[in-house]
Amino acid sequence: MKATQFFVSTLKEAPADAEVVSHKLMMRAGMIKRLGAGIYNYMPMGLRVIRKVEGIIREEMNRAGAVELLMPVVQPAELWQETGRFDKMGPELLRVKDRHGRDFIIQPTSEEVVTDIARLELRSYKQLPKNFYHIQTKFRDERRPRFGVMRGREFTMKDAYSFDRDVESAGRSYENMFQAYCQIFDRLGLEYRAVAADTGAIGGDRSHEFQVIAETGEDAIVYCPDSDYAANIELAEALPLLASRAAAGQALAKTPTPGKSTCEDVAALLGLPLSQTVKSLVLATDELNEHGEVVKTQVWLLLVRGDHELNEVKAGKIEGLKGGFRFATVGEIDAHFGCKPGYLGPIGLKQPVKIVADRTVAQMADFVCGANEADFHFTGANWGRDLPEPDLVADIRNVVAGDPSPDGKGQLAIQRGIEVGHVFYLGTKYSAAMNATFLDETGKPKPFEMGCYGIGVTRILGAAIEQNHDERGIIWPDAIAPFTVAICPIGMDRSDEVKAAAQQLYEQLQALGVDVLLDDRGERPGAMFADWELIGVPHRVVLSDRGLKEGQVEYQGRRDAEATKLALADVVAHLQARLKA
Amino acid sequence: MKATQFFVSTLKEAPADAEVVSHKLMMRAGMIKRLGAGIYNYMPMGLRVIRKVEGIIREEMNRAGAVELLMPVVQPAELWQETGRFDKMGPELLRVKDRHGRDFIIQPTSEEVVTDIARLELRSYKQLPKNFYHIQTKFRDERRPRFGVMRGREFTMKDAYSFDRDVESAGRSYENMFQAYCQIFDRLGLEYRAVAADTGAIGGDRSHEFQVIAETGEDAIVYCPDSDYAANIELAEALPLLASRAAAGQALAKTPTPGKSTCEDVAALLGLPLSQTVKSLVLATDELNEHGEVVKTQVWLLLVRGDHELNEVKAGKIEGLKGGFRFATVGEIDAHFGCKPGYLGPIGLKQPVKIVADRTVAQMADFVCGANEADFHFTGANWGRDLPEPDLVADIRNVVAGDPSPDGKGQLAIQRGIEVGHVFYLGTKYSAAMNATFLDETGKPKPFEMGCYGIGVTRILGAAIEQNHDERGIIWPDAIAPFTVAICPIGMDRSDEVKAAAQQLYEQLQALGVDVLLDDRGERPGAMFADWELIGVPHRVVLSDRGLKEGQVEYQGRRDAEATKLALADVVAHLQARLKA
Repeated sequence: MKATQFFVSTLKEAPADAEVVSHKLMMRAGMIKRLGAGIYNYMPMGLRVIRKVEGIIREEMNRAGAVELLMPVVQPAELWQETGRFDKMGPELLRVKDRHGRDFIIQPTSEEVVTDIARLELRSYKQLPKNFYHIQTKFRDERRPRFGVMRGREFTMKDAYSFDRDVESAGRSYENMFQAYCQIFDRLGLEYRAVAADTGAIGGDRSHEFQVIAETGEDAIVYCPDSDYAANIELAEALPLLASRAAAGQALAKTPTPGKSTCEDVAALLGLPLSQTVKSLVLATDELNEHGEVVKTQVWLLLVRGDHELNEVKAGKIEGLKGGFRFATVGEIDAHFGCKPGYLGPIGLKQPVKIVADRTVAQMADFVCGANEADFHFTGANWGRDLPEPDLVADIRNVVAGDPSPDGKGQLAIQRGIEVGHVFYLGTKYSAAMNATFLDETGKPKPFEMGCYGIGVTRILGAAIEQNHDERGIIWPDAIAPFTVAICPIGMDRSDEVKAAAQQLYEQLQALGVDVLLDDRGERPGAMFADWELIGVPHRVVLSDRGLKEGQVEYQGRRDAEATKLALADVVAHLQARLKA
Repeated sequence: MKATQFFVSTLKEAPADAEVVSHKLMMRAGMIKRLGAGIYNYMPMGLRVIRKVEGIIREEMNRAGAVELLMPVVQPAELWQETGRFDKMGPELLRVKDRHGRDFIIQPTSEEVVTDIARLELRSYKQLPKNFYHIQTKFRDERRPRFGVMRGREFTMKDAYSFDRDVESAGRSYENMFQAYCQIFDRLGLEYRAVAADTGAIGGDRSHEFQVIAETGEDAIVYCPDSDYAANIELAEALPLLASRAAAGQALAKTPTPGKSTCEDVAALLGLPLSQTVKSLVLATDELNEHGEVVKTQVWLLLVRGDHELNEVKAGKIEGLKGGFRFATVGEIDAHFGCKPGYLGPIGLKQPVKIVADRTVAQMADFVCGANEADFHFTGANWGRDLPEPDLVADIRNVVAGDPSPDGKGQLAIQRGIEVGHVFYLGTKYSAAMNATFLDETGKPKPFEMGCYGIGVTRILGAAIEQNHDERGIIWPDAIAPFTVAICPIGMDRSDEVKAAAQQLYEQLQALGVDVLLDDRGERPGAMFADWELIGVPHRVVLSDRGLKEGQVEYQGRRDAEATKLALADVVAHLQARLKA
């Protein structure tokens, strides 16, 4: 491609609403252009990257035996009513009525439609397993779209759906997709980690997120450097930090802690380690009658160590909290604790509450907790002596770096990541709801065992940039760069020699199948270099009159500190070697 | 591709709602699957065709210097309000509100968005001309979606938009796209015709439709076999059929024509040629005040020869009718003609109406027309003698086969066609409405001269099938067939020799880049042949144990009456020759 035949449009400054580096750089490099909140035009430069990402995904999905089709953007509500998602999903599901007043949705995913296809098309176990995928525009009406393509409303996703005859076969389909995803992210040239994730109501252990490692990532991912353990923070198991409970060493004492409503402040005031304090969190669960009216409310007290954080996903797995919970109101807290938040604790309750202690809290002795009286805490609290044993002991906290790995093979470390892919075993959730069955060997109808497998195509652009950039701009991996090589001729309009050499090199590289850009815009060298560094083209060759007089050109990789002088005759071989590496 | 790794799903019978052959065959061949009215899943077999069509379009658009980007499906209403289309467009524009109650539309085209991009990005005449295109999902909420992909609601369209500095340059951009479209439809392997079309309010002569020739087409296209004249019926000019008006030969006579309310019936009753009769059509135009209330109504009488049809597009170009017209009500007709429809005519009006005569009618003498009295017609009517000359003489009829070509080079012929592409000069319609300007050489802002260029990607599938099918199924042109060659081994499970030969041929063709399908499903020969004939694979090679014993295979082109025996060793060369042809 010659630059004058393409569309290059860079900005010196990013717009004010761009908060993260990938958003800023994509705007500055002319990859995207905002049309509305969370809605972007993919400009020519950005679309080239998208198409390369899609190409790699498509090749590997096909290689894995998945079959591509294309399901509509606008989908009839009826199917979404069969699974209940039309009503259950919140306002992030964009609903629309057609001219006849019929309900439709703009697809955020396609479980219902693909399950409908399967129940019509896959009639016998002989047709299984089958995996259908498409790469299609999606819409999710995010409450607060931001970060450019990282949390947009309209985006491109690859979503695949597998159909199997039984759980064992579904496991093989899952593993097959897991391996395909590893191939895909390897080929994209991204540093990533596949981490175990929560399976929610489906259960089982078949859910993995593919996370691109980036300091700016929204997700915390947990791994063990000494083993292959890796999970997202929602799932990563926290073992008790204390092997057993020590004997009580102190007497219970009510201590004034005026104005100190956080564990940090209390520990500092008392000169105790934060790990000696216990944090109290009050939840509530409502029992509803058939009219959706609350008939009974249960209040819960969850206890984690002062230096730990509550993990709401783990809390949500506790019997009694599974059906959904909320944080208690100030009124409920006052009724049960006789005290305002900040000084709450498990000792001396006004009304009974269910007490759930984190595994580590349950092993603590002589701990500090709120005294249920404003400006007072207890010190020297001990289970069994000062208060009954907790109603329940459970893993309800986030792990922290240094925690023991659940596989017993070392200590956990934590990285930040950006979720770009997800493989998930669905079981019969959708097939049962939609009565999607096949006939097994005995001629009996059985619901499909399903899996779903998503990759956020447009999000990958943001993640790749968050991981690969410097102060000058983007640094694309070779495989997904908008152009692999930029040829920058200096003074092309003045020098026939430069012009001829640039054209010849351009044609040579094109003939070798290299995706090369010839910058024939006639820009000054500084502006030209700044553009291609901002845009992130990974390889650059500079031709100048002076250099060519000595038969030389300059090569610079986007991550190289400085340029390398090469004989003009060697540059193609040099590039080929670099591109292979 | 091996059939077992793909998804082949054919039907013996088409569903009852499929009216046209392309819809029936696409359903039966498993190319599409209905999801809702006018909304289809593109199944794996159909998607392969779509991707090939898109690939050819993309290559030729890029070759013509157009630059690909991707504009969103969900677009903010604000831009559509700038041009007034948000309000002006009827219910075919799908409107939707997001969670905040803001208005959006699901794009039917992207003039507004691309013009917004241009006004932000194209600041100087030096950046012009520029042509942006995308291939994207569209939605039009058709009142009566039908004919499968031919008139669907959700469909894929390639739409391109050119931006030029002046009319002359816009003309070159238009011509460039016209030539690119010819390349595209040539490469698609379709028989087509580019016909001049109406430019409506824009004016000028730069609008062409690309019509795929098919007997079942909805459009009538007019051409001259002896010249390059071609236009759609809306535009094709009708010259007067009579060089000059003959002298009156008969006296005016009121003749009873009881119950004969059509020209056909009257001509038959009177034993006169239909071409001696004149048909009366009554239109009305309303003048509105600022509140949208009708303050004045003008009634019009349009006269065409009995064997001709009124052309409403031509009528709409008449001064006075340009602003829009409607057919008159029975009440209005009675007030002006004192008669019910069926016996109307231009002689003896109760109240004055504007009379517009078609060019041919204006030259007629001794003609037959309604007497404005039920069950009576006049014969021997003559302009100037029995009634005043018409207020206006204009071309207001459709041409018919045999009419003189407007270029004077022969007689017109009429074919049926399916519109699959349209190139259109827009002028400054959108750029002026949206204040989209660039700075010219003198530094003054000027609105862009624009053009738009659409191709109905998914519609091309339907059009190709309407043109290319037989009683056994679809006959795809090589370039867009889902597979170019089908290898059908007979008894592959019983014969290692058949299996090995099929596999070897498959690999040989793959290595040559041929898009080959190996049918390894183990179906009986009849079922296998029927499937690939229905699906429309253009080339088939059959391997059998018996044939291989003699070193022979059978080749059959999809249009060949019978199979040709070939030496196994020659089949690759034979296929290569056929594919090149």
